[in-house]
Amino acid sequence: MGRFRIIHSCGEARCGVYSTGHGEFETPNFMPVGTRGSVKGLDIERVKETGAQIILVNTYHLWLRPGQQTVRKLGDIHGFTAWDGPILSDSGGYQVFSLKGIRKLTREGVEFQSHIDGARCFLTPELSVEIQETLGVDIAMVLDECPASDLSFADTEKSLNLTLDWARRSYVARRNPDMSLFGITQGGLYPELRKRSAEELAEIGFDGFGIGGLSVGEPIEKMYEVLSYHVSELPKAKIRYLMGVGTPRDIVEAVKNGVDLFDCVIPTRAGRFGRAYISGPEPYLNIKNACFAESLEPLDSECNCLCCRHYSRGYLRHLFQVGEMLGPQMLSLHNITFYQDFMRKIRDSISRNEFNDFYAAEIKRWENID
Amino acid sequence: MGRFRIIHSCGEARCGVYSTGHGEFETPNFMPVGTRGSVKGLDIERVKETGAQIILVNTYHLWLRPGQQTVRKLGDIHGFTAWDGPILSDSGGYQVFSLKGIRKLTREGVEFQSHIDGARCFLTPELSVEIQETLGVDIAMVLDECPASDLSFADTEKSLNLTLDWARRSYVARRNPDMSLFGITQGGLYPELRKRSAEELAEIGFDGFGIGGLSVGEPIEKMYEVLSYHVSELPKAKIRYLMGVGTPRDIVEAVKNGVDLFDCVIPTRAGRFGRAYISGPEPYLNIKNACFAESLEPLDSECNCLCCRHYSRGYLRHLFQVGEMLGPQMLSLHNITFYQDFMRKIRDSISRNEFNDFYAAEIKRWENID
Repeated sequence: MGRFRIIHSCGEARCGVYSTGHGEFETPNFMPVGTRGSVKGLDIERVKETGAQIILVNTYHLWLRPGQQTVRKLGDIHGFTAWDGPILSDSGGYQVFSLKGIRKLTREGVEFQSHIDGARCFLTPELSVEIQETLGVDIAMVLDECPASDLSFADTEKSLNLTLDWARRSYVARRNPDMSLFGITQGGLYPELRKRSAEELAEIGFDGFGIGGLSVGEPIEKMYEVLSYHVSELPKAKIRYLMGVGTPRDIVEAVKNGVDLFDCVIPTRAGRFGRAYISGPEPYLNIKNACFAESLEPLDSECNCLCCRHYSRGYLRHLFQVGEMLGPQMLSLHNITFYQDFMRKIRDSISRNEFNDFYAAEIKRWENID
Repeated sequence: MGRFRIIHSCGEARCGVYSTGHGEFETPNFMPVGTRGSVKGLDIERVKETGAQIILVNTYHLWLRPGQQTVRKLGDIHGFTAWDGPILSDSGGYQVFSLKGIRKLTREGVEFQSHIDGARCFLTPELSVEIQETLGVDIAMVLDECPASDLSFADTEKSLNLTLDWARRSYVARRNPDMSLFGITQGGLYPELRKRSAEELAEIGFDGFGIGGLSVGEPIEKMYEVLSYHVSELPKAKIRYLMGVGTPRDIVEAVKNGVDLFDCVIPTRAGRFGRAYISGPEPYLNIKNACFAESLEPLDSECNCLCCRHYSRGYLRHLFQVGEMLGPQMLSLHNITFYQDFMRKIRDSISRNEFNDFYAAEIKRWENID
């Protein structure tokens, strides 16, 4: 279950509302990533303060530690994380893809060794759905197989067949009708396979659609090319989620093509390494740069996050220089706030039929960035 | 400057108020440690929420990085840290003590190698005061020499002579009358030297007195023994600060003898390693313990900190198991809140003439702890 209402469109871009058993979120939206049930460095009140409306957790990681039954006993994923709003979990498919060397794929599922203790694990589409239902998430993703972007047509097609088969099995496996279940499209960089993927998934009748297999090593132009034809192949009335993407630049590109939902580790990961996304002519800065040593400016004078309200660039640079954990915490907080503000501006610009201007301005900011 | 008013006494224990140019703090009080200008893992609003009224920073660390002039340019220590309440800085004496192997002590001062780049640094009593004035702290400490606790009487006396000489020079060196300057007593475990230390410092006329050279490796009973005779040797009307101490057990012992102020890294350091101080029969727990894996209880059901309001012991254990930084953050936040609540209870018990009962109950909690 889960209900998606489109409120306004501006070209292919649209804004809407998705409803779950734990409340609504507006689209386009960005989910901070809480892989192991924690958005790195932020307590749950700080996550809320960023403006986040939905968060993501990882099935694979929570399955291995602490285990879905433990999460359930600790108040399901909402009580566990203390996040009372919507929560989406990925299926573990991407992690299985990342474990390429140490996994064995069969029609039935995927066998691999735990990254923790080397134990043999066997994940099937049915088990992935069951784990996600036990966690108690609002939106579950089907288990998919993500092919490398440089695979041949024949191999990518073979992989897609498996993904589609798993999608059907996942759909049948759902027991809890209150939990949304999203299919995931694959097909690499092959238009024909992408189209088939979208069509066959649509027939199954999912509550929404993830676009998988992008931002996995292919050149960025290739990703934009797929978005240019593939997003519109998905049912217009359903929510569309571009998985694991991306920079603000990527996000406006995807929204332009009709994507509604995103997740990415960039705001927290980049934050931990000193990169802050900012307003103004430059899209980001590296706070470790010596030029900020005596700067009294906040990271971003247009931002109202705790970091920007209290701290100077000079102080933040100092924190990174001396290795204080508050530095990564503050840049993560700022970056997620920046992303949430960015999504709000996107929604506003769509509502006011000004998205094309917003898009053009954002592209300009990234012109000289490689 | 700085004004200390004693409001109520209960035996040797007393409660009072110390006023600075950045507001007051109640005594007995505990200062969270912000060595490099950050209380580890807590943003400044979270520090405030613990109930902290004054924080401590380290002269030695800020001198080397980012340098006191940079701190000044970034809004002095208050603008730099975004803490608008009272701030006390230590003098660097303890750090010089810790660098024992790579320092050279003379009558004039101490030469040592920076722990960062090996550069030769020379710290004098005058320079320490100047650095602290430049930082803009409310309370500065004099540079002292902290002898090892197993030194002979003759060597400890020689060291004390140097400390007293440096104290006089520090007093003369102060330029800013708005900044409080505290002397520091030494004398190791020798009653005669402790007494001389207290008397000679009192004659100089400091605004308050640090008790130094304790909790530096001596058996805990030896520290309690020194406290039993030494605290009362200090001027009754002045604030007394036991430096670098300690556990809740140590704190009640010191308050019983008339100590007013404390600082210690224990709440944050222990928190980073999974120890949480709690109410109830046991004084603390180790959250990594397997027995907490499925516990829905908060760390401390009597605590109202963000960690205890939102998170279960099971979730917190999970954070430590998987190495999420939120674990150390939350236990640090809880422990500092616990310490602040503890100090408030001490003040209340003194006000109500019930400190002896409070003391007895606390001692009982620690009976079976080594």
